[in-house]
Amino acid sequence: MKVAIISPIAWRTPPRHYGPWERVVSLLAEGLVKEHIDVTLYATGDSITTAKLRSVCKAPYEEDRELDAKVWEALHISEVMEQANEFDIIHNNYDFLPLTYSGLIKTPMVTTIHGFSSPKILPVYKKYNNKTHYVSISNADRNGELDYIRTVYHGIDIEKFTLNKEQGDYLVYFGRIHPDKGTWEAIQVAKMAKMKLVIAGIVQDKSYYEKYVEPHLNKDICYIGSVGPEERNKVLGQAYALLHPINFNEPFGLSIVEAMACGTPVIAFNRGSMPEIIQDGINGFIVSNVEEMAGKIKDVMNISREVCRKSVECRFTQGKMVKEYIEVYKEILKYK
Amino acid sequence: MKVAIISPIAWRTPPRHYGPWERVVSLLAEGLVKEHIDVTLYATGDSITTAKLRSVCKAPYEEDRELDAKVWEALHISEVMEQANEFDIIHNNYDFLPLTYSGLIKTPMVTTIHGFSSPKILPVYKKYNNKTHYVSISNADRNGELDYIRTVYHGIDIEKFTLNKEQGDYLVYFGRIHPDKGTWEAIQVAKMAKMKLVIAGIVQDKSYYEKYVEPHLNKDICYIGSVGPEERNKVLGQAYALLHPINFNEPFGLSIVEAMACGTPVIAFNRGSMPEIIQDGINGFIVSNVEEMAGKIKDVMNISREVCRKSVECRFTQGKMVKEYIEVYKEILKYK
Repeated sequence: MKVAIISPIAWRTPPRHYGPWERVVSLLAEGLVKEHIDVTLYATGDSITTAKLRSVCKAPYEEDRELDAKVWEALHISEVMEQANEFDIIHNNYDFLPLTYSGLIKTPMVTTIHGFSSPKILPVYKKYNNKTHYVSISNADRNGELDYIRTVYHGIDIEKFTLNKEQGDYLVYFGRIHPDKGTWEAIQVAKMAKMKLVIAGIVQDKSYYEKYVEPHLNKDICYIGSVGPEERNKVLGQAYALLHPINFNEPFGLSIVEAMACGTPVIAFNRGSMPEIIQDGINGFIVSNVEEMAGKIKDVMNISREVCRKSVECRFTQGKMVKEYIEVYKEILKYK
Repeated sequence: MKVAIISPIAWRTPPRHYGPWERVVSLLAEGLVKEHIDVTLYATGDSITTAKLRSVCKAPYEEDRELDAKVWEALHISEVMEQANEFDIIHNNYDFLPLTYSGLIKTPMVTTIHGFSSPKILPVYKKYNNKTHYVSISNADRNGELDYIRTVYHGIDIEKFTLNKEQGDYLVYFGRIHPDKGTWEAIQVAKMAKMKLVIAGIVQDKSYYEKYVEPHLNKDICYIGSVGPEERNKVLGQAYALLHPINFNEPFGLSIVEAMACGTPVIAFNRGSMPEIIQDGINGFIVSNVEEMAGKIKDVMNISREVCRKSVECRFTQGKMVKEYIEVYKEILKYK
């Protein structure tokens, strides 16, 4: 089976630090190669892969402001489409734009919808519904007007995360610094619980950071910037619990799965895919607000860090994700 | 011959007020229909045409902020591409994005390059150079790395503009309020020449308007907002001269041609296509700076308003543009 995978070009595949879509695409591409699938990865020129790499855009446009994102995404996508005949299936991880080329090629295409940035992008998904195939990344993220072939949860390379059986003494926040992600709420919880908080992630909303985060920083509430793959294992694994007080319906939470893989329980607001990933009282807690989150801190004592790890091993590994995508590809090729 | 014309969807075709690309597309489409060409116009749903109208986007995205421009332009363009087999030729007036679909269809495509918004968009034009066809709208706007089939100047519907033989008593500025267009410079010239100035056009750069235009407004320097097709004839025709002190290489100047069609001479800075449109001393003057422009005001007396009109009748009519585009289409179909 010859598969073309379209990765975003905002960041390298895999990303150096931030880049959740690129991270998942990398895990998928590498996993498929291990399963002896013939994979061609369309990504930035500096990407690292055991698949065949094809790229028109030399560097990620988020890292090189000389690159016009609209220009390079169009060149990136059209390159795949012009070479479509070489493949049995095209797996699109580049949001809606590739769909608009799909009516002009013969190769079937499956699109993983990595979340809807806005309801305004729905008209494209509606137009190509049933003309192409959609995979959801959680049941919560499904849109009622679209048909999906399957939900495939993201999987992580669990070998990269080691179970730390010892409970740490600080709370950790892991994600973009943005009101959606609830950085300010995490700070409030840490203060109420009188515990240290380590904040890691890129500043996506500078004015939010300056107004709601920076003024609270001190020796107990510290911001450590964006954390790359190696440090991640340490920062997550040595924590007491990960706080995830999100203010939006997050379609999936890679960082919470990574925390659990290290044995660290997660306390999250009841939004989006959280109840699908967190089994309340087993590998974390689902709560409704800052007060409830602070109140649950002490109950983390009762959660087994081994069980947290196990919950990831069963449901969110790279191997499982790869196996499920191969099943998706096969199902689509059956219809062809 | 069956021709599909892709118009932008930022504004209606023809535009209610502002929308230079849509204005030219409308003139072309209507003119081709008169020449018994089978034209299908892809434009906003509220567009007005004697051609067959096809639209997926109901309203111009610049007039309806609920519409995501990126979403609707992709749906608009893909619609044409999916119906490409119905046409002998596709005439793209939608910048670079349609080029990225052109390798997936069999119908030949010609793109009128209505100006380069930035050198950053050149990679797309370079990739599809010689795989498709380019028309320049002035020789000045040609890029040395691209091949063009022809320059076709924009033409206006000259019947809509009446020659006013009587010289007016005010200067006119006609264009977007933006530093590129030199609104501030026009004000300086009017002050130096001690003449009235009428400023017409949409405010595209609000802070520029507030800082460099608004403070100068008085009974002699007045801003009248955007002016629709009917009023245009009056505002341009009753002027003494049109000032066009541009600070960028304008690829073409529709408003200066319209002014000349009314008999009003144009004084412009020596940038972009200006020397191709203005014959110095015949239908206006080419100058280098504000002082030179002010100095030329008195010489406008020596220019014949009839000759101004005649210069448009010979070179910049809808009929001439239509005839030349038909020649372009025929030449491309010959190669097919």
